[in-house]
Amino acid sequence: MRKPYHTAAFRLTRCLALIQSVGLVLFLSADGACSRTQVAHGPYQEIVRELREAGLAGERGFELLERITSVGPRLTGSPEAAAAVDLSLRLMNEMGFSQVHAEPVEVARWVRGDVAEAVIAASGTRQSIPLSVCALGGSVGTPEGGITAPVVEVRSLDELSLEDRSFEGKIVFFNRPMDRRLTDPFAAYGGAAAPRGGGGAAAARRGAVAVLVRSLTFRVDRNPHTGMMRYDPGVPRIPAAAVSTADAEALSALINKEGDVSVSLRMNCRDMGRVMSANVVGELTGVEFPRQVILLGGHLDSWDLAVGAHDDAAGCVAALEALRLIRELGLRPKRTIRAVLFMDEEFGGTGGRAYVRAPQRKGERHLVAAESDRGGFAPVGLAVGRTILRKVSSYADLFRPLGVSFIVAGGGGVDVAPLIEGGAAPAAVILNAQAYFDVHHSALDVVASVHPRELELQAVILAALAVILAQEGT
Amino acid sequence: MRKPYHTAAFRLTRCLALIQSVGLVLFLSADGACSRTQVAHGPYQEIVRELREAGLAGERGFELLERITSVGPRLTGSPEAAAAVDLSLRLMNEMGFSQVHAEPVEVARWVRGDVAEAVIAASGTRQSIPLSVCALGGSVGTPEGGITAPVVEVRSLDELSLEDRSFEGKIVFFNRPMDRRLTDPFAAYGGAAAPRGGGGAAAARRGAVAVLVRSLTFRVDRNPHTGMMRYDPGVPRIPAAAVSTADAEALSALINKEGDVSVSLRMNCRDMGRVMSANVVGELTGVEFPRQVILLGGHLDSWDLAVGAHDDAAGCVAALEALRLIRELGLRPKRTIRAVLFMDEEFGGTGGRAYVRAPQRKGERHLVAAESDRGGFAPVGLAVGRTILRKVSSYADLFRPLGVSFIVAGGGGVDVAPLIEGGAAPAAVILNAQAYFDVHHSALDVVASVHPRELELQAVILAALAVILAQEGT
Repeated sequence: MRKPYHTAAFRLTRCLALIQSVGLVLFLSADGACSRTQVAHGPYQEIVRELREAGLAGERGFELLERITSVGPRLTGSPEAAAAVDLSLRLMNEMGFSQVHAEPVEVARWVRGDVAEAVIAASGTRQSIPLSVCALGGSVGTPEGGITAPVVEVRSLDELSLEDRSFEGKIVFFNRPMDRRLTDPFAAYGGAAAPRGGGGAAAARRGAVAVLVRSLTFRVDRNPHTGMMRYDPGVPRIPAAAVSTADAEALSALINKEGDVSVSLRMNCRDMGRVMSANVVGELTGVEFPRQVILLGGHLDSWDLAVGAHDDAAGCVAALEALRLIRELGLRPKRTIRAVLFMDEEFGGTGGRAYVRAPQRKGERHLVAAESDRGGFAPVGLAVGRTILRKVSSYADLFRPLGVSFIVAGGGGVDVAPLIEGGAAPAAVILNAQAYFDVHHSALDVVASVHPRELELQAVILAALAVILAQEGT
Repeated sequence: MRKPYHTAAFRLTRCLALIQSVGLVLFLSADGACSRTQVAHGPYQEIVRELREAGLAGERGFELLERITSVGPRLTGSPEAAAAVDLSLRLMNEMGFSQVHAEPVEVARWVRGDVAEAVIAASGTRQSIPLSVCALGGSVGTPEGGITAPVVEVRSLDELSLEDRSFEGKIVFFNRPMDRRLTDPFAAYGGAAAPRGGGGAAAARRGAVAVLVRSLTFRVDRNPHTGMMRYDPGVPRIPAAAVSTADAEALSALINKEGDVSVSLRMNCRDMGRVMSANVVGELTGVEFPRQVILLGGHLDSWDLAVGAHDDAAGCVAALEALRLIRELGLRPKRTIRAVLFMDEEFGGTGGRAYVRAPQRKGERHLVAAESDRGGFAPVGLAVGRTILRKVSSYADLFRPLGVSFIVAGGGGVDVAPLIEGGAAPAAVILNAQAYFDVHHSALDVVASVHPRELELQAVILAALAVILAQEGT
């Protein structure tokens, strides 16, 4: 049974807001609700139904996805990322958002270059065998002639530090697969990701000259998956490349069979210093408490092997489309609902930190910071901060018809972490993630891998959550 | 919290069953459980974990899917369906199931032929415009020269019966889209499916000479989606074709613009009488109550425009793979767990009816009849009959790590309907269905549209459900 969440006073507030905005003559029904002949709103049950119908009736979220990805891959600091900032400002203005603006973010610029080659060097009668590799984000390149060295396979960072073998002058090959047996792909990813980020520094500390890291995906195929790696101060910066899972298995089999295997690695990726970029911000300003903010965010930057349709154009679309749906229904909640498209989630997280430091934040209070950064797949649940779990759970009946079968404590993300440290409650739609790492950070993260209805449902859920929290507060 | 579902007696029963089967020397631990050095079982929590890990570790369900679909489309009564029966017997034997056999089913044989053409006939200076169509299952063909007639568009069967326009000599065009605004695609399908099944008979009753039915999918594309249609006794049998959604929209626009539009339809599909086919049955025989059956079923027949990967090779795989997982873990539950691959779900449902009438059913009691016929997508919930809802729900904590976020009353299907009438409790895994009707009954229902892990999870859930119910009874 639905509880009577709505007081007549609340309805009236919203009707009055409408009067202010469009000057409608109101017909109040017996129970104080705005007449249905005037505008499509009423209690939340009705609002959520209308958000759902308006969203699912078309594929406007998917159309937004096509537009955002039309600029190409949006690597932090790249001309395409700059184009995405301009486009996003245009989109927000087209959709009638308020206070649309860019906020500056200083970011790193790194370029992949046009060479990423690895071959198993000839030994005896064996021919050269090419490996499908790509530079990890932030890696230095190799000397122009490449690096040729014997390969040592390890499974983990721990194995590297305990191992009494010598890694001096070697290429360390981290061959740690994601644990397929886990139902949750993110848990499997988390359990296998350490060598990608820290393998280069750890191997360099042991005297290695380069690292090859098995791609983070369940699939056994020839697509390398990139991702960020980080160097440690005082340790040599050695080249770091991801190798496809199929090639990782082949290389491992060869090492097991022949013992001595050398690889030649050649890459011309390089650091280009720092450049200015921006977060893109737009909102539906709250009619009573404009400085109290419900934030819906995604990150505008992507990796550069594809257009980042799932990661994270989908998250940007979810935020934009949620605001569009709310606005087009004529809803004017008490508190501000804001879309923020963060720059540089993938390459340092500077956008999230710049956002909280921006002068515009003065006097603002963020109640909720929802980050959508798990793709555009089918929603299955909702995760929110513990401080709002009880309140959001009391609306479970409204979210269920949108595919939200459970509401749990959780949420968060790189971009909103500084806001959450500052007291905002996190929130995120939980999606079916079985196929996420098939495409994640690889050339497969393309528009065709996103389903229009699945993407739209995420936007509808965020819209419903934002409206309720913007109206009710936390 | 996990409840102590397991008595020492239960554990012992299962250990003894193992002694009988493999003659192991047993080491009982302090609490009476079989020693873990002997065999991988224990309380259900442990069993479910092992089923999950054994399933998700590989892609064996997907490999089964590739094998079943390798025979091609498996239209009821076709040589390919016969080959699928032979292959399924072989697969069940390979996997070590017991009592593997085929049970005869008499089915209709209908062939699509090699012609299905529709063109908007030239009118004035307009050129002929081809429409992408396919015969609906069971339709008669047209005369060899085709049927050319003016088209009348309607939205529903009701509109046809109320309409005072004449349909005499016309082609009736049922242009009812699925309601996109509904979250549940099956609800949208159910709301739009009536013209496909009954439109031909209803239009013939009004004097029409053929029907075109808009394909049942949310997507606007050029793939026609087939499906069964039925004639009424005493009413002329007129040809019935599905038209792709994109062509349905184009045709509708043209009718709106020009009023008078004629279409020429030519098809050489035809009825070929009745032939013998079979259901395929195999089981893990219960060690205490072998005549009490937990049935896991899917349908082996498919439509003929593709290999029916989702519909319903995936359902067959879910049943086969569930039994394989249970067997390979060395589990020997008290009651029989049976896989049944039904013939002819799509073309009359004769397989389900033949199964309950087969002589082998004498003395058997089916406690549960689980039908998997909603594709191979990601599991989100579980639906079971009201009589077992409480019992199954008490194990919710075990199903949750498999992606089952809710357990509700439901289940059922064409094949198991006669069993359920006879008192069996229905059961079904509920899947994310947003993309199901993109491919359903069309040329897009191919192996590549199934995700190996999503398919495997369905099998793991069915295995867990079957083990618990086979052990605990209902």
